[in-house]
Amino acid sequence: MADPRFRGVIPPVVVPLTKDRELDVASFERSINRMIDAGVHGLFFLGSSGEVAFLNDDQRYQVLEEAVRIVDHRVPVLAGVIDMETERVIKQVERTQTFDVDALVCTAPFYALGGPKENERHFRVIREHAELPLFAYDLPVCVHTKLDPTMLVRLGRDGVLAGVKDSSGDDVQFRWLMLENEDAGHPLSLLTGHEVVVDGAYLGGADGSVPGLANIAPELYVKMWDAYQTKDWDTVKECQDLLARLMFMTRHVQATVGFGAGVGAFKTALWQLGVFETNAMREPVQPLVGDDVVQIVRTLKRCGFLDVTVAPRI
Amino acid sequence: MADPRFRGVIPPVVVPLTKDRELDVASFERSINRMIDAGVHGLFFLGSSGEVAFLNDDQRYQVLEEAVRIVDHRVPVLAGVIDMETERVIKQVERTQTFDVDALVCTAPFYALGGPKENERHFRVIREHAELPLFAYDLPVCVHTKLDPTMLVRLGRDGVLAGVKDSSGDDVQFRWLMLENEDAGHPLSLLTGHEVVVDGAYLGGADGSVPGLANIAPELYVKMWDAYQTKDWDTVKECQDLLARLMFMTRHVQATVGFGAGVGAFKTALWQLGVFETNAMREPVQPLVGDDVVQIVRTLKRCGFLDVTVAPRI
Amino acid sequence: MADPRFRGVIPPVVVPLTKDRELDVASFERSINRMIDAGVHGLFFLGSSGEVAFLNDDQRYQVLEEAVRIVDHRVPVLAGVIDMETERVIKQVERTQTFDVDALVCTAPFYALGGPKENERHFRVIREHAELPLFAYDLPVCVHTKLDPTMLVRLGRDGVLAGVKDSSGDDVQFRWLMLENEDAGHPLSLLTGHEVVVDGAYLGGADGSVPGLANIAPELYVKMWDAYQTKDWDTVKECQDLLARLMFMTRHVQATVGFGAGVGAFKTALWQLGVFETNAMREPVQPLVGDDVVQIVRTLKRCGFLDVTVAPRI
Amino acid sequence: MADPRFRGVIPPVVVPLTKDRELDVASFERSINRMIDAGVHGLFFLGSSGEVAFLNDDQRYQVLEEAVRIVDHRVPVLAGVIDMETERVIKQVERTQTFDVDALVCTAPFYALGGPKENERHFRVIREHAELPLFAYDLPVCVHTKLDPTMLVRLGRDGVLAGVKDSSGDDVQFRWLMLENEDAGHPLSLLTGHEVVVDGAYLGGADGSVPGLANIAPELYVKMWDAYQTKDWDTVKECQDLLARLMFMTRHVQATVGFGAGVGAFKTALWQLGVFETNAMREPVQPLVGDDVVQIVRTLKRCGFLDVTVAPRI
Repeated sequence: MADPRFRGVIPPVVVPLTKDRELDVASFERSINRMIDAGVHGLFFLGSSGEVAFLNDDQRYQVLEEAVRIVDHRVPVLAGVIDMETERVIKQVERTQTFDVDALVCTAPFYALGGPKENERHFRVIREHAELPLFAYDLPVCVHTKLDPTMLVRLGRDGVLAGVKDSSGDDVQFRWLMLENEDAGHPLSLLTGHEVVVDGAYLGGADGSVPGLANIAPELYVKMWDAYQTKDWDTVKECQDLLARLMFMTRHVQATVGFGAGVGAFKTALWQLGVFETNAMREPVQPLVGDDVVQIVRTLKRCGFLDVTVAPRI
Repeated sequence: MADPRFRGVIPPVVVPLTKDRELDVASFERSINRMIDAGVHGLFFLGSSGEVAFLNDDQRYQVLEEAVRIVDHRVPVLAGVIDMETERVIKQVERTQTFDVDALVCTAPFYALGGPKENERHFRVIREHAELPLFAYDLPVCVHTKLDPTMLVRLGRDGVLAGVKDSSGDDVQFRWLMLENEDAGHPLSLLTGHEVVVDGAYLGGADGSVPGLANIAPELYVKMWDAYQTKDWDTVKECQDLLARLMFMTRHVQATVGFGAGVGAFKTALWQLGVFETNAMREPVQPLVGDDVVQIVRTLKRCGFLDVTVAPRI
Repeated sequence: MADPRFRGVIPPVVVPLTKDRELDVASFERSINRMIDAGVHGLFFLGSSGEVAFLNDDQRYQVLEEAVRIVDHRVPVLAGVIDMETERVIKQVERTQTFDVDALVCTAPFYALGGPKENERHFRVIREHAELPLFAYDLPVCVHTKLDPTMLVRLGRDGVLAGVKDSSGDDVQFRWLMLENEDAGHPLSLLTGHEVVVDGAYLGGADGSVPGLANIAPELYVKMWDAYQTKDWDTVKECQDLLARLMFMTRHVQATVGFGAGVGAFKTALWQLGVFETNAMREPVQPLVGDDVVQIVRTLKRCGFLDVTVAPRI
Repeated sequence: MADPRFRGVIPPVVVPLTKDRELDVASFERSINRMIDAGVHGLFFLGSSGEVAFLNDDQRYQVLEEAVRIVDHRVPVLAGVIDMETERVIKQVERTQTFDVDALVCTAPFYALGGPKENERHFRVIREHAELPLFAYDLPVCVHTKLDPTMLVRLGRDGVLAGVKDSSGDDVQFRWLMLENEDAGHPLSLLTGHEVVVDGAYLGGADGSVPGLANIAPELYVKMWDAYQTKDWDTVKECQDLLARLMFMTRHVQATVGFGAGVGAFKTALWQLGVFETNAMREPVQPLVGDDVVQIVRTLKRCGFLDVTVAPRI
């Protein structure tokens, strides 16, 4: 059976920076505490939203060190060990395991693609070098491979994987994954990263969610989870609708596309909400400015996350 | 407000052929009646599952003529007017409107792609040449363009579109489409073609579904719809889970990929269930044989759609 | 051996329209004669550049009727029989063969994709219904399938195909196609549609080219071909460099993307050169205007196709 | 003007391993010397063919240390500094510059994609942290971004880039890049990585090539280059044709797809030629075996690289 520690709302933590693009430890602490106080069930550091690709190793492990210190065992900590291919991931695993974290999260190989055999072997080899529970991070938008449900369940049954963070955007295959997992005795903890349709994943039986938007609205995701536990589907849907509207903040960014629009909008919202001190981004991404900020403030106000009378921070 | 005729379960009708690849009218009648008797709320002919791409115009309009005759106003009939670009679609509209159908279904332009402006103009120009309600068919897997939710709602508000059949596989954008449609006063009837996660679309507020798999299991889709209407979410999920398992029939086809695997599996199942007399396909697609048939029979038996003692038809 | 009629420069003919978007027969005649007078070795009608996707059948066959009349056997005529899947293509073949054309040009199936087996069978079935030589049109940008070189040569050896128009953009596979064709005794006439790097295809041994840009600069493509025949590679490269610069006209269109930018730029250039009376496009595409026209005029002037003192037509 | 050191044939060096997947220094030396003796004009280490993605940092810098020692200034050394985003690349730059190499080679950001602005800034920021000449590595198959020719030439004119290794497979844009570079005074050294159509790139004016296949056939690539310098295009084409046939070795691998088929075939060929002691691959890729090896031997024999009487090594 899947490890019960890895259930519920487990936000991928967005990382605040100072104006000089250094880790802003005070804001980081404020944001983490805000999520834990809201009742989240775990925290995922060094994922895509956590800018793992943009950090050199020193920067990565500074984030992890502060994260572990701040969380202080209040909730389980999952840590990304994201790198190009197997040998590089193993190095990240070794260093990550020197910190007091609870699970590792690893994508398929990327940059030099292979086929299904290489993907399966990748996870098996990493398992041999890891002591902590290992999650597969299914993220074709970044790694350009979709992980097959049957393979994932086989890796679960064989003790290689403890769970899956599904950010594939392929809800059909996620449903099949849930059914095959059930048939195998539920070895995997199945978490959706699809923050706009978490309600559908819950109706299908997901074990939890990893919503980037929970950095901004942790209470709502926790409320949705609690309603799911009591099968109060009206509340589940109501929460999700509001959150789906809140996600509009990422839709109309003009200055850029991709990461800078998505995580850029999250950082801007957290800055406007007073959780972060800036909306600074790591190179080569630039922070949102001007009308992009105004639009995000407008979305926050419309969804009731900011008082309509408040002036935007600039 | 969206036209109340276009709500509920509206299967895209799969077309039976004789061994010589002619329309098998008797089987067609049997299959249509079986779906209407099961309580479906409409039928969609000449969609992708209806082999529209594989039929020349004479063959298309033979299908439509028989369809209209057989349905005989028991449920609304939607008809695909699928062709490459605007002028060709207009010809299909003109000829389709000589039949007694209730709505037209049209994709974005394909073959020679443009941008959002061309896509929007395409629907507006077609509207000028059409008298019946018009549905947009959002189907990037075939037309390689994803329709933007904001544009779709604008076309709904302007009276260009009556609804959307969403087969985009992008549940996030479908959720946004539902929310924007709501904000605009619900001008569009929003139907999901995503047969494996219809439950999530219903939880989000969809007006109905267009599930290819309903050719095989119409009662279950109707049961899921009825449960949705009474907010009996346990039943909704239970129906969807069984249907998601039934859909496994399309997953392990060895002989081919794409259309021949998907609709090929549906035809094979309908043949094995005695609804169709063959599983013949239009050129250049070949019918499934051998182990592919055996696997589909196995799935039908596992899901309780075929008695375990029945031998496969060959 | 490949049919010697299908060698050399065979432009895909761009079609002029009146302001009301009717076929402008006078301009069509002027443009066709201009290309034949420049020495082109054939003409390809109803290809992608010939707006085949945008024309209903009546419009298609009006173009073909006028084309055959105007060309009047001065050069071979190739005619596109482009449609979604096999049965629809067969209808186009039947109707096209009522005109006095010399060869048919056909893509892989599109809209509902299959695999390599379906692609190969598609051409074989069409061959059974065709009397004229058949060219495969390798055009993944429109049909989303790349044709395999080994399959193409097999179809050549079996008498199914007379040649290939390669617009795949995959020069590596085109080189392999040329080598495999050579090994098989050169059954296929291999024509590149890659107008910016025709010189490389010639160096590799191509039998000709189908360059859209030859509508604008037919003499230069003929000059490049003649230089190729005498192995005057300096002249080949010199011609290609100027043509590659002329193609800049398609690169900086602001108003749209895709077909409207590419063929839109060609029509605008032909209008500015006085060959066409308008740059009108078929619905839903709109003609280029304003700065897009100015930029195209500038490119024509820079490349010496328009006197620098001429004012743009508006 | 482009630096004259970076002209001619600059193979991306494939790395031999022992059976235990350790660097096989003796074979590495043999292979490097074989290429230098054949007359190559430079060597590129830690590129995609050099398994850069599969090596942890210790393994990367062991390769580089041995490479620099073995080459010993006989030809310029280019070193890949491949990592996900800017900050990680900077770390690779810093460490790479402690070795006696001549230039750095860097891709666009990958994993978390942005837009053109982020891509341009990425190179500019790296330039600020680098002392050596910097090449852009245009490799959409790995990084899923195509670099724009106009941007590349702007970066050349501004002193950010010294050249481009183009492995984009987009020969049209490479031609435009060559023309724009010429217009700007030729600031960039433009090298094609497109080993099967190097002749076309030379005809267009390329400054050199970076052909993976030159690990196997360095003399032929040098012969093609020398013929290019004297405009002996018959010889250029003849060399390229044989090399294009030799490349067939990568086409029919059955065991896998992607990297393991391509570089796996190269390693297998070098093993069969006696240059390498094994065809071992880094995890998670497995070496080719059985019929895949037999087919590669057959290609080597057909192309005259192996005596027809020699039995395959096993």
